[in-house]
Amino acid sequence: MEQRISLITLGVTDLDRARDFYERLGWRRSVRRAEGVAFFQVGGMALALYPRTALAADAQLAPAGEGFGGVVLAHNVRRREEVEAVLAEAVSAGARLLRPAHETEWGGYVGYFADLDDHPWEVAWNPGFPIRDDGAIELPD
Amino acid sequence: MEQRISLITLGVTDLDRARDFYERLGWRRSVRRAEGVAFFQVGGMALALYPRTALAADAQLAPAGEGFGGVVLAHNVRRREEVEAVLAEAVSAGARLLRPAHETEWGGYVGYFADLDDHPWEVAWNPGFPIRDDGAIELPD
Repeated sequence: MEQRISLITLGVTDLDRARDFYERLGWRRSVRRAEGVAFFQVGGMALALYPRTALAADAQLAPAGEGFGGVVLAHNVRRREEVEAVLAEAVSAGARLLRPAHETEWGGYVGYFADLDDHPWEVAWNPGFPIRDDGAIELPD
Repeated sequence: MEQRISLITLGVTDLDRARDFYERLGWRRSVRRAEGVAFFQVGGMALALYPRTALAADAQLAPAGEGFGGVVLAHNVRRREEVEAVLAEAVSAGARLLRPAHETEWGGYVGYFADLDDHPWEVAWNPGFPIRDDGAIELPD
């Protein structure tokens, strides 16, 4: 299995509402002719939004679930002062602030929000993980 | 907020066990000096494995959760016949087969497995989403 992830699909309760949230963050959809799903190109992969019950059914999983789903997405920023700006932008697009920006023990500066379906996002400035001009991060060995 | 995802972090109950699973798939870790977390470079982003309770605490979320977490990761392959091969490889590394490879209504061929912490993965051949030589997928408009 090659070392790649092609898509992350987030299960949502209201597709239009979820899509509008990400568009309010300034994101632009791809595959706009696709119905019943929304795709966003993120680097060399895709973020997809798809009804949660259908997502579970596709994987033949029971759709019910509650509490922490065990997955956190992170959006790293180039400059420390962008952390608060991105958190504020998310909140003004309808997100819920989970944890305000704060210093971390590893020398970073991070905060957390939850999107409209409670998917948690970390917004992080991590001086140890450089971000290229195209937005890719490159991990050191 | 730029249209990017920098990391996906999967909460795990046993970090060594989870790391070994992804290494059995042939994946190679980065940031090997980091303790208490495992990082894998995946394209221009990272997959991180991190103890589930600590992951929840960082986001100030209650750690408990059960059932479907509402997130599915997908690994797309270049050729249809790779779907079964990757599913078999995952199962032989310890994954649980959720759904065998099958045709989809959109013309693809996909199957699902769950990793050792029940994070679901889709293995997909999607003729509509070309894969570049470097593994990136490029969505059409």
